[in-house]
Amino acid sequence: MLETSKNKFSVMEETIAKQALHKAYERETSALIAHVRDRSNAIAELEDLWYLHDLLSTKRYEIDGKYVYNFSTFVFDCATLVKEKWLYLDDLQGLKPEMLSKISALARM
Amino acid sequence: MLETSKNKFSVMEETIAKQALHKAYERETSALIAHVRDRSNAIAELEDLWYLHDLLSTKRYEIDGKYVYNFSTFVFDCATLVKEKWLYLDDLQGLKPEMLSKISALARM
Repeated sequence: MLETSKNKFSVMEETIAKQALHKAYERETSALIAHVRDRSNAIAELEDLWYLHDLLSTKRYEIDGKYVYNFSTFVFDCATLVKEKWLYLDDLQGLKPEMLSKISALARM
Repeated sequence: MLETSKNKFSVMEETIAKQALHKAYERETSALIAHVRDRSNAIAELEDLWYLHDLLSTKRYEIDGKYVYNFSTFVFDCATLVKEKWLYLDDLQGLKPEMLSKISALARM
């Protein structure tokens, strides 16, 4: 399939897209690190450790690959991140308005 | 196979055995909890979280079932714990001297 301006980003747009993903990544991972630190200070017995282990297993699975830039899934990836509040539409300013509308609409579903 | 006094514990010996296992359990799990707390305070990035996850995966696998009292494997279980320094021969005082000698010898292997 030939790429047209409709299904690819300009260099500037790609930079904005990658920076936005990176911001979201920083937010989610910082929140996770803070949460793990809080939980760790409250560990009193082995069950608390295994709770932490289960949490890390889930999060590792969820985060693995989540922030890899991929144009073909970018709208859906962003909509998920907006829904989860790791990404804001403001982070995506500079992308085409129709793409922002799609992301915004998907994030509300 | 008939049980004789050679291959079973008296009530008193079984109590000593279980208490010793419990002491070792407390030592290992307390050390693990302290280690995880220390590591957690030093978490700066995602890789540190995944290191913690790997550590907990290994420890969970190792500890699962390790402290279940079982007469038939008691000498070997104790020797492992003595070798790992979670258990001391003093914790086993009251058991038969020949059993203590076996545990001591195995722990040095």
